[in-house]
Amino acid sequence: MGNIRLGKTFIYLDRLGLRQAIVSDPLSIFYLTGQRHYPGERLLLLRISADSGSTLYLNELSEDKGTVDGIETIQFNLGEDGLKRVAADLDQGAALGVDKDLPARFLLPIQEYSGIREVRLASEAVDHARQVKDLYEQGKMILASQINDAAMEQFAGLIHEGVTEREVRDRMDGIYRSLGADRVDFGIVAFGAGAAEPHHMGGDAVLREGDAVLLDVGCVKDGYCSDMTRTFFYKEASPRQREVYGLVKRANEAAEAMVRPGVRFSELDAAARDVITQAGYGPQFYHRLGHSIGLTGHEAGDVSAYNHNVLEEGMVFSIEPGIYLEGEFGVRIEDLVLVTSGGARVLNGYTKELVVLG
Amino acid sequence: MGNIRLGKTFIYLDRLGLRQAIVSDPLSIFYLTGQRHYPGERLLLLRISADSGSTLYLNELSEDKGTVDGIETIQFNLGEDGLKRVAADLDQGAALGVDKDLPARFLLPIQEYSGIREVRLASEAVDHARQVKDLYEQGKMILASQINDAAMEQFAGLIHEGVTEREVRDRMDGIYRSLGADRVDFGIVAFGAGAAEPHHMGGDAVLREGDAVLLDVGCVKDGYCSDMTRTFFYKEASPRQREVYGLVKRANEAAEAMVRPGVRFSELDAAARDVITQAGYGPQFYHRLGHSIGLTGHEAGDVSAYNHNVLEEGMVFSIEPGIYLEGEFGVRIEDLVLVTSGGARVLNGYTKELVVLG
Repeated sequence: MGNIRLGKTFIYLDRLGLRQAIVSDPLSIFYLTGQRHYPGERLLLLRISADSGSTLYLNELSEDKGTVDGIETIQFNLGEDGLKRVAADLDQGAALGVDKDLPARFLLPIQEYSGIREVRLASEAVDHARQVKDLYEQGKMILASQINDAAMEQFAGLIHEGVTEREVRDRMDGIYRSLGADRVDFGIVAFGAGAAEPHHMGGDAVLREGDAVLLDVGCVKDGYCSDMTRTFFYKEASPRQREVYGLVKRANEAAEAMVRPGVRFSELDAAARDVITQAGYGPQFYHRLGHSIGLTGHEAGDVSAYNHNVLEEGMVFSIEPGIYLEGEFGVRIEDLVLVTSGGARVLNGYTKELVVLG
Repeated sequence: MGNIRLGKTFIYLDRLGLRQAIVSDPLSIFYLTGQRHYPGERLLLLRISADSGSTLYLNELSEDKGTVDGIETIQFNLGEDGLKRVAADLDQGAALGVDKDLPARFLLPIQEYSGIREVRLASEAVDHARQVKDLYEQGKMILASQINDAAMEQFAGLIHEGVTEREVRDRMDGIYRSLGADRVDFGIVAFGAGAAEPHHMGGDAVLREGDAVLLDVGCVKDGYCSDMTRTFFYKEASPRQREVYGLVKRANEAAEAMVRPGVRFSELDAAARDVITQAGYGPQFYHRLGHSIGLTGHEAGDVSAYNHNVLEEGMVFSIEPGIYLEGEFGVRIEDLVLVTSGGARVLNGYTKELVVLG
């Protein structure tokens, strides 16, 4: 069989009016070749061409990991200028797409050696292919989120009088590994007023009665990421906390209910935002609704008012509305969803009912 | 006073035949402005010009950290194309230097909008400035290595029957923080045959009598890095281990004795390599002698056969010869040295005599 992911990428490349591109993102290279390389400063480029075949260029310190379906592998000596070979292999009469993060130390010599005048950003092609998960990837995403559900249960169990944010945070990697994850991806633990800061990193705050407890956590399993937020309350929840919680939950569910192929990302954002805005908390929900996820925690494909692309079957992204009352508390409820022909498959099963711990 | 670091950078830029450059490396921007910004995907560029003043371009999500000596600060709205402004501020008739890692998503639009045809790699200018530490930086480097000396003493105390590499590794961050460091930078712990792999990351290997114990460790203090390697033996050292240890120590000392302004990096590498090669272990010392260090653990400026640049007062780099006997054991001894007018100031005071622990 051919390299299906490469074939998918050529379709999206074609939509950009391109037939050839240079891919430099090691995760995109992993996606297209199945090989993980960690080039550091070294040369690692994948030239893909719908016309003349594709080549993975490695330097001699990068391990040759064998043949890849539909892609030739070339290794250089350290002394050699691999970029000359890359440039020579390009179709010099055609436009060239490049990854948005291709560094100048590769791009400038390729421009010079190849003489190609039309060089354009083309990350979008591989990014789009990565957004639309194939069945193998969907399985991995489901598994990573199942682990995340089980982990959330254990994290909730760590919440007790006097515990600090940092103490909870420090337990996460061990818990994830014990559940079979590769590792923690990230973990935000925020108590009380800290929960009103969307990117609070967790510190020495000690848990107190009446605090919101916001846990925004994710792990990596077989290279694929999970990401979920739940907000608990400790010992008691005030009427205002209950009101805000209910609103955020409704916003989350309103967006999830809209998910189906053909709907725009921006429509999901609007659906959640409307719920919150109509209740008068619009200014307190000041971030996008979500982000795509896969081989990294944040992939191309915002769920925001600015992204008018349509959902396709196989896409996976977060839906994470929040209301943040500065100095008081914050609530965010986040699930990952997979787009199926029948609507959203919500990958997180952990309860979204209001839970008072302790 | 003017911005002395910027002035120093213009001198090196001039040697490249350039009067203006775009700096994108956040650490180089920190070096030149004293401000730490974490742009992620966002626009963060510093345009430096010996003729028309310099500008730091931030997007609105990056905190404006106030005025910088000799550098104007401009913040963009998210909706604005900041690269148009950057391009407009460039001298469009002059060549432009850019950082080697400037990503294509910034470089291609700057090329297009400015119409500048001669764009060249120029990281070397800031890198050179960063290599030559000023007195403030020298003080920070000395302090970070003093902490590293104290930490090594504590790490050696963790070596006991049955301990695993990972257990030692897991203690490092706590020990460094207790000694006043910002954090661990990295820590390689290798026992026995693992010590024969220069980049062994530490795993479940359990310590056994007769093992070499290689600790290659560093921390960050006030943003500056330390890096030291010592190789111990557990319970006993065989005659061959003693022979190899003595050779590596002689190689380390031979190179350190040669350090003074005007000597070439490659001459240091040769001095150490000669000691090892003459004893017949040349093939078992298969990496460069060292690397420059400062705001990151590995900075531009290899101590290798390929770097014929000369040492200057204020440069700080590692000297770390090693002999690796595959499947048996390895020895590496590494110090950081600061180049002074009088020769090397060795920043690590921890003993290099052969130590048998346990």
